[in-house]
Amino acid sequence: MKERPIGIFDSGVGGLTVAHAIKQILPGESIIYFGDTAHLPYGDKSAESIKLYSRKITEFLLEHNVKVVLVACNSASASAFDILKKEFSQTILIDVINPVVDYLATKHYERIGVIGTKRTISSGTYENKIKNRTGETTVVSLATPLLVPMIEEGFIFDDISNAIIRTYLSDPSLKGIQALILGCTHYPIIKNQISKIFNFNIDIVDSARIVAEALRENLEKNDLLNMGDKLKDQFFISDYTPYFEKIARMFFEGEINLKKADIWS
Amino acid sequence: MKERPIGIFDSGVGGLTVAHAIKQILPGESIIYFGDTAHLPYGDKSAESIKLYSRKITEFLLEHNVKVVLVACNSASASAFDILKKEFSQTILIDVINPVVDYLATKHYERIGVIGTKRTISSGTYENKIKNRTGETTVVSLATPLLVPMIEEGFIFDDISNAIIRTYLSDPSLKGIQALILGCTHYPIIKNQISKIFNFNIDIVDSARIVAEALRENLEKNDLLNMGDKLKDQFFISDYTPYFEKIARMFFEGEINLKKADIWS
Repeated sequence: MKERPIGIFDSGVGGLTVAHAIKQILPGESIIYFGDTAHLPYGDKSAESIKLYSRKITEFLLEHNVKVVLVACNSASASAFDILKKEFSQTILIDVINPVVDYLATKHYERIGVIGTKRTISSGTYENKIKNRTGETTVVSLATPLLVPMIEEGFIFDDISNAIIRTYLSDPSLKGIQALILGCTHYPIIKNQISKIFNFNIDIVDSARIVAEALRENLEKNDLLNMGDKLKDQFFISDYTPYFEKIARMFFEGEINLKKADIWS
Repeated sequence: MKERPIGIFDSGVGGLTVAHAIKQILPGESIIYFGDTAHLPYGDKSAESIKLYSRKITEFLLEHNVKVVLVACNSASASAFDILKKEFSQTILIDVINPVVDYLATKHYERIGVIGTKRTISSGTYENKIKNRTGETTVVSLATPLLVPMIEEGFIFDDISNAIIRTYLSDPSLKGIQALILGCTHYPIIKNQISKIFNFNIDIVDSARIVAEALRENLEKNDLLNMGDKLKDQFFISDYTPYFEKIARMFFEGEINLKKADIWS
C-alpha cells in the first residue's frame, strides 16, 4: 500500500511545478502524472467540461493504483474538486486551493489578492473559501489569462513579460494587498517578476510548496509515507507534441519522459 | 440543393473572420459554423489529433446538409485537409491555404513571409505549396504563438500588443519580404498593427477575403450559388462559456447566437 505512487493531474504540464515540489519534499515517493494536453488550457473551458475531464482522469489514475489523487490544477480544483470528493469518497483527494486557504488562515491578513485563469477567478472559489474561514479578510480576484501562454511561449524576465505583468497587477483593486495568491500552477515560474512589481513587500503565495507540505502531512497522518522501494515515475499526456516535452522540462526543472495515454477516444 | 447552407469550421471562434467575409461577399448564402472550443487551440495540438477532430466535425456539418465544407482554420488546413479530401471525396471542400497560394502565384514575389501557430508553421504547408507553385520564391516561416491569446485577451492597439508584434516581426528572417501571409484566422484583427511595423510597405495577405472569393468562384462554377430563400445562420461550439460569446462578436463583427453541440461525448 505505502509503495503505491502518488497520482497527480493537471490540464497540461503546468502542474509539474507541483510535481517538482513533491519530489523535493517527499523524495521517497514515486508519482504518476497525467496532463490533459488534448483539452488544455482548462482556464477557458466550462465548469461542466472540466468536471467531465477530471472524473475520467481520476479513474485513469486509480486504475494505475495510486494511493492519493492530487488535483494540481487550479481550474479543476475550483470547478471539479467537490464533485470528485463526492464521487470518489473512498479515495484520498488533495486539491491546490484548500491547503492555501489553510495556510492563509494562520496569517490574519486584512487584504489578499488572487490571480488566476478566467475559470478559476469566475468560480469565486478562493474568495468564498477564505471568507468562510477568516471573516475579516477582504479578497480581491483578478483574471490574468495571458500569463499562461506568455510563460509557455518563453516570455519571461524580459520587457514584454514585465509589461504584461505590470499591466495586470496595476489593477486598482490590488492596491493595499498584503499577500497575492498565485492561483495557477504556471505562475511560480514568474514569482520573482511578480514580487518585484510589489517591491518585494508582500507575501507571494506559491501553492506548489504549500500543497506538497499538505500532501506530506496527509500521508503521515494516514501512515502512507513510502519507506520501501520506489517505483519508476511515470508522466502521461493525452496529446503528444515535442513542444510539450520542451516546456515540461521548464516546469519540472529536470529531465522528463512524456508518454501519450489516449483516454479520450 | 442551392439553398443548402455553407459549412464552416474552426478550432474556436477565430474562423468567424472568414464567416464575416463570406457574409459580405456572398450575402445570399446561409452558413452553419462549428467552433471546436472543447479542443481549442489547435495550434498546440498534434497533427494526429487535429485529423481526428476535423473528420468528426466534417461529419457533423454533412449531417446538417451543407453544400460545401470550408476549413476556416490554418492549423486544420495544414494538418488535416489532405486526409479530408481523401475521405470525403464526394464533398466540395475548401481550405484557407490553397486559395492564398493561388493568389500569390499571380504576384511573382521574390521573398514572402508567413506567420502562424506552431502547428501551421511546423507543418511547412505554406512553404511547400508556394515553392511547388512558384519555384523562384523564397518563403520564410515564423511561429508567433502568443498572438492568438493576446488578441483573445483584448491586447490590441496598445503598448503590449505593439511590443509583442514588434518582437516577433523583428526576426531577422523576415528582412526584405515583399508580402506577409497572416497564416491564422485570428490575425486579421491586428492587420493594421502588423502593416505599420513594415511602414505599410508590403502586401499583408489576409486570407479571409481571398478564401471568401475562392468560395464564390467555386459555387459559381458548380452552379451552387443560392438564388432562393435564405436559411437561418447557425453557430455551434463544442464547449460553451459566456467568454466565447463575447469574443465571437469581435471576430464576426456583429451579433451572434452560439449554441452548444456536444459531439465529443
